[in-house]
Amino acid sequence: MSRELFVLTYGALVAQLCKDYEKDEDVNTCLDRMGYDIGIRLIEDFLARSAVKKCRSYSETAEMIAQVAFKMYLGVTPSVSCCSAAGNEFSLILDQNPLVDFVEELPAERASLCYCNLLCGVIRGALEMVHLAAEVTFLQDKLKGDAVTEIGIIFLKKTEEKKHKRNK
Amino acid sequence: MSRELFVLTYGALVAQLCKDYEKDEDVNTCLDRMGYDIGIRLIEDFLARSAVKKCRSYSETAEMIAQVAFKMYLGVTPSVSCCSAAGNEFSLILDQNPLVDFVEELPAERASLCYCNLLCGVIRGALEMVHLAAEVTFLQDKLKGDAVTEIGIIFLKKTEEKKHKRNK
Repeated sequence: MSRELFVLTYGALVAQLCKDYEKDEDVNTCLDRMGYDIGIRLIEDFLARSAVKKCRSYSETAEMIAQVAFKMYLGVTPSVSCCSAAGNEFSLILDQNPLVDFVEELPAERASLCYCNLLCGVIRGALEMVHLAAEVTFLQDKLKGDAVTEIGIIFLKKTEEKKHKRNK
Repeated sequence: MSRELFVLTYGALVAQLCKDYEKDEDVNTCLDRMGYDIGIRLIEDFLARSAVKKCRSYSETAEMIAQVAFKMYLGVTPSVSCCSAAGNEFSLILDQNPLVDFVEELPAERASLCYCNLLCGVIRGALEMVHLAAEVTFLQDKLKGDAVTEIGIIFLKKTEEKKHKRNK
């Protein structure tokens, strides 16, 4: 399947939310929430289709997101780097972001818009379904003049505990 | 590229419009208009990528939409039938509609929703860019209990005239 129809449809979604909400922050929140709802459904498709084994570390998980999931759903492979001594913070660097193929630049009045924020929600939702809590945000964005587009993932270490508590 | 992320994102778009508009008709109109805006941009990508020759008849055009465009953007190939003696009305029959993969059924209060109406707009917009005016609507929809999903295309015979008028 070619991605142009998807990319343009995504643009229509963002444009609609910009009509609906005056504040960029509200659009960003809405995109993240929509993404989350997508992620919790998409994970099943991902696991079935990729037939990957369980990841044994945050680092493996981050590589899996970049090399398998991004490739499968967006046709690009971000590079991954670990950015904390604790080994729980990662950056996905996208040289090329297909979701903005048809976007030239953000309008001046939408300077705080995280155009692709849906992706952060998708990652967060999908991770939660495999019992990994994470904060996922855009750290850099070419659309805002940054040199690259960078998605930050911080794995939080509490889900496992919560799960145990629930099981008691 | 796998289509699940697209299909779920499309679902989020329709859900948002259902929040925004109470009447199904307004959602349908909005989806059609969004599709139109997408179609007029997508046609360039389609022509560049498919490297197809100019169609010499409505029938060739309908086959092109089904066999090349649907295949390229949605990964399915509808069957085509001509349904008027004048040779300007066609049906695209979809046994399988990937856009509704994750939709079980329409909620009772949304019985008039044309869930995939974006597609009609896309076809209409793309055709207009190659100087073919058309009416594109859903005639049957599996989501509404019909046996198949059927998109009707009626080619209108006035664009060529209009173009000549503009050029004078």
